[in-house]
Amino acid sequence: MSDAAATPGKPGLAVSPLAVPLPAMGVIDGVRLATGRAGFYKHDRPDLLLMAFDAGTTAAGVFTRHAVGSAPVDWCQAALASDGGAVRALVCNAGCANSFTGPPGADAARRTAEAAGAALGVPADQVMLASTGVIGVVLDAARIERATPDLVAGLAADGWTAAAAAIMTTDTFAKGAVVETHIDRTPVRIAGIAKGSGMIAPNMATMLAFVATDAALPAAALQDMLGVAVQDTFNAVTVDGDRSTNDTCLLIATGKAGNAPVLEAADPRLADFKVALREVLLSLAQQLVRDGEGATKFVKVTITGAASDVSARRICRTVCESPLVKTAIAGEDANWGRLVMAVGRADEPVARERIAIRFGPLLAAVDGMVAPDYDEAAMSAYMKAPELEISIDVGVGIGRAVMWTCDLTKRYVEINGDYRS
Amino acid sequence: MSDAAATPGKPGLAVSPLAVPLPAMGVIDGVRLATGRAGFYKHDRPDLLLMAFDAGTTAAGVFTRHAVGSAPVDWCQAALASDGGAVRALVCNAGCANSFTGPPGADAARRTAEAAGAALGVPADQVMLASTGVIGVVLDAARIERATPDLVAGLAADGWTAAAAAIMTTDTFAKGAVVETHIDRTPVRIAGIAKGSGMIAPNMATMLAFVATDAALPAAALQDMLGVAVQDTFNAVTVDGDRSTNDTCLLIATGKAGNAPVLEAADPRLADFKVALREVLLSLAQQLVRDGEGATKFVKVTITGAASDVSARRICRTVCESPLVKTAIAGEDANWGRLVMAVGRADEPVARERIAIRFGPLLAAVDGMVAPDYDEAAMSAYMKAPELEISIDVGVGIGRAVMWTCDLTKRYVEINGDYRS
Repeated sequence: MSDAAATPGKPGLAVSPLAVPLPAMGVIDGVRLATGRAGFYKHDRPDLLLMAFDAGTTAAGVFTRHAVGSAPVDWCQAALASDGGAVRALVCNAGCANSFTGPPGADAARRTAEAAGAALGVPADQVMLASTGVIGVVLDAARIERATPDLVAGLAADGWTAAAAAIMTTDTFAKGAVVETHIDRTPVRIAGIAKGSGMIAPNMATMLAFVATDAALPAAALQDMLGVAVQDTFNAVTVDGDRSTNDTCLLIATGKAGNAPVLEAADPRLADFKVALREVLLSLAQQLVRDGEGATKFVKVTITGAASDVSARRICRTVCESPLVKTAIAGEDANWGRLVMAVGRADEPVARERIAIRFGPLLAAVDGMVAPDYDEAAMSAYMKAPELEISIDVGVGIGRAVMWTCDLTKRYVEINGDYRS
Repeated sequence: MSDAAATPGKPGLAVSPLAVPLPAMGVIDGVRLATGRAGFYKHDRPDLLLMAFDAGTTAAGVFTRHAVGSAPVDWCQAALASDGGAVRALVCNAGCANSFTGPPGADAARRTAEAAGAALGVPADQVMLASTGVIGVVLDAARIERATPDLVAGLAADGWTAAAAAIMTTDTFAKGAVVETHIDRTPVRIAGIAKGSGMIAPNMATMLAFVATDAALPAAALQDMLGVAVQDTFNAVTVDGDRSTNDTCLLIATGKAGNAPVLEAADPRLADFKVALREVLLSLAQQLVRDGEGATKFVKVTITGAASDVSARRICRTVCESPLVKTAIAGEDANWGRLVMAVGRADEPVARERIAIRFGPLLAAVDGMVAPDYDEAAMSAYMKAPELEISIDVGVGIGRAVMWTCDLTKRYVEINGDYRS
């Protein structure tokens, strides 16, 4: 199946009011894609993605730090370590996370990789795996084995748009980003797709991101750049603070652009590439928040004046994940008292007599008290916008952090109160 | 005002389906109470409580560990330290937390204590203060000053029931507990009231608890016993993980029971008293959860097999505060995959191949996989009960923790999305 209009996500879900359109994805030379249906969902929708990479492709990955994890994450980590980062394919399914499935789950992962490897004529340990869906159900590998020949036959360079749809679970829109840059004057492209409707989500909504470039880069350099780039992109967004067992972000480089060899991430010729990579990851990460379950507000939270950047990040995460802050935002209430509450419960150094809070350009609190010219009408008007900025200075140092989050609405409760039914 | 039937809480709030009746509170010899109206709310309801204690009364307190805190918490901590724990009165108001109010807030606290002290003829620094309500608004002390003479005139030993109502904010039922015990054969009573509709709640719903006994006990012994007893009672309940700026639990001993002097908390003659004190605190703490905003389920979560009790507590808190776990419970969904998710994201040691999960007596998962005889129909039937028990063994050691929480419903979002309006 390569029809991007095929039913994405869960039937009946209205598209997020914060959705952005999928860009024209184009192609990445050396990458071909195909989507199909294994039948992990009762309704007719694509639930399988095969990506095939030309010989010479390298890859890097970052994975959930969840203590339980999942069979596909285990597989990818071992496979990436085994062949110097050489990869030839990726199989991704929606509808089953294959997490908390013990040895039978590990067997199903191996069978999936072997089927794709055999059909493509590449080693199984150069096949990456990603699964998203219900936790605790063993992946039915036979469904993927049956679908694999058709997938291989359907591989095409222009399959990115259909791929972005096939990996959705409760997502309400397909997510992608493309940037063109250069390495030492050679033009290169970076294209990525992602899924997730929660930083992690339920039983189901794992965050997955697959990013490919035609640049020629060794796996170690990819890994170093990816490890840095996720910190203030994917690791700086949160919907509900719950973390998936399956989170996976892969960065794949086909080498087809023919740039001069660059061995290390620290090479100054990679400066523009790093900026471009961050741009793709940040766009995808922000699209996850824009599709946060039930979200009606896209919120940037900035913490300044913290004891350190690490401390600022902790305060920022506490604010972004506070149910009382998130419900106030849903209610379009400039409830800065709840921000004070969230800042103070982060167990990080703050100087209460110097705390200052802004909503966009509007000063709400300063010197540890309500601002002298606080204007409730202006605040209320500001809170009606779909995109908000909250800035809090905690008055002790120069630590700084930025994160993006969304509001907590009745719709979130509704979506998650009956996911399995 | 001493009418316990006066409008409690916020108008129009339906009483929690998990509510329990207020017990017959009786009296604590040496304690008199009066309630009245200062006018912190627009509608007609009691919002002031004065408690007066006879000469010789000692007290201990535990307070929020929130980094911002509030003027009344600052006042109590200083006052308790100044006179060897001697106290003669408590003034509590609902409707204004007097938190994040800088020097004007501190002045308002001092004026409140001075007014009560002057009217009762006791030192201001033997007057405890507690405030609950909106953060960031300076307490209007003049309102309390004006109401104080009537309060003093109305003091009565049987005012406990009215007191439990007067301190409510978004609470939907009044909370109290009474236990009779003895110290070295002398009968003593312990009575307590509490408010809170969230472990902490919004802008407003501070947890406050005032517990009094007629036992004769020095302040240091009270402080030691209270510090221990709150750990697995008030500190073991959570509604939304948000922590108040004003949380206060006071333990007051009038000495009227005439028990033999006991100097230290470690004295074996206090064994029964400690059990009774814990019983009162646990009952009050559980009543807070039963009145959790929007709650429809009262849930006991037990973690066993952790690396330590501290580790078990961290895992337990993560499970209790996970939005995905809480929404699944609201949906009566035995979604054990979300429990696995929450356990694994606590960043504590767990052995995934040995994790076991029970809902009440029903085994959901064992040896890191779904239980072989997992019965969805039996699980679904179990989840329909208003009171649930979830037990998780994480398979690495002998650490254990128990906490109580409630579900996360659309009503929570509704209550907190428009609190200030």
